[in-house]
Amino acid sequence: MSKVALGPIPLIYPTPALLIGANVAGKPNFMTAAWCGVVNSQPPMVSVSLQHHRHTLVGIKENNTFSVNVPSADMVRETDYCGIVSGAKADKVADCKFNVYYGKLKTAPMIGQCPVNLECKVVQMLNLGSHTMIIGQVEEAHVTESCLTNGKPDVEKIKPLLWAMGADSEYREFGKPVGVGFSTGKQVKSQNSPRR
Amino acid sequence: MSKVALGPIPLIYPTPALLIGANVAGKPNFMTAAWCGVVNSQPPMVSVSLQHHRHTLVGIKENNTFSVNVPSADMVRETDYCGIVSGAKADKVADCKFNVYYGKLKTAPMIGQCPVNLECKVVQMLNLGSHTMIIGQVEEAHVTESCLTNGKPDVEKIKPLLWAMGADSEYREFGKPVGVGFSTGKQVKSQNSPRR
Repeated sequence: MSKVALGPIPLIYPTPALLIGANVAGKPNFMTAAWCGVVNSQPPMVSVSLQHHRHTLVGIKENNTFSVNVPSADMVRETDYCGIVSGAKADKVADCKFNVYYGKLKTAPMIGQCPVNLECKVVQMLNLGSHTMIIGQVEEAHVTESCLTNGKPDVEKIKPLLWAMGADSEYREFGKPVGVGFSTGKQVKSQNSPRR
Repeated sequence: MSKVALGPIPLIYPTPALLIGANVAGKPNFMTAAWCGVVNSQPPMVSVSLQHHRHTLVGIKENNTFSVNVPSADMVRETDYCGIVSGAKADKVADCKFNVYYGKLKTAPMIGQCPVNLECKVVQMLNLGSHTMIIGQVEEAHVTESCLTNGKPDVEKIKPLLWAMGADSEYREFGKPVGVGFSTGKQVKSQNSPRR
């Protein structure tokens, strides 16, 4: 297990590939972001880090709302496109044929074709250097009805994408299940401190 | 594409399953965390959200350093174990037979068996409610030599895990590549705004 130091790079696996939505001057726009994650459970919060110059960020500051849309693997072309082209120059909604809808926040545009959509209200913004980190409280989660099993989100039906950094930075599908949370770990026996 | 509102849940796919390391009173300890992600590129920063009562958090506050360790799919038992058992009650390093090593920060214990290890220095801590969000600057990334191809991290060799919420909250492997970053999206043709 010889190690090689690669310098200070934020090498986390996996990172998501999400479509962040905002109304910019009343027009819906979406951009791709991988520097995102869950940051709190109660109340539910996510963080999204965007470069300061992003068109989408203008809309988030304008309305203090945004959306997080989870694309399925069959939307990989549209997902990558929204990371290449700026909404200041192109109408990404038209180009990608997104069906845009709004929920309770009214100003957070969501993509109908994405199996999961979160409506978020801005709680805090931090300038961390190259990026503005936006912490958003999730006000509502919407899931495509056909992606539910017994009323719960089903990964096999959602078929999400992931973003993997490395030699070839690429989008990948989810692979097969290898363990169940808070269960598989019970196979490890406590050596030094027998559990009572 | 009929939608069902599931209430305010932070439903992001994928989330990671990482082992967060800290020295607690001089003793290395690791816990599993999924509420983590990259939050800045320059300087490189990650965020890790932990419940306030976590033993690992005591160590992070003690030293202002921590590690992020990316387990491989064949470490799913150990990964789940470190999320079930508290370091206040068990010696998880002994139980999981982790080979612990230290880098330039001296106080951020890392797991040799994990293919990727990040040494981080605390930049900021925010109490968001149920969790403390720790923003850490990555000081060094270490990768197992056999997981590199031409000096770059190779996902096929790292074989990372992911954590998927839903009907069955489970660990999964990465699946097959479906697109290349900043390339696959060029297949979408701009409709309304021809590119020059």
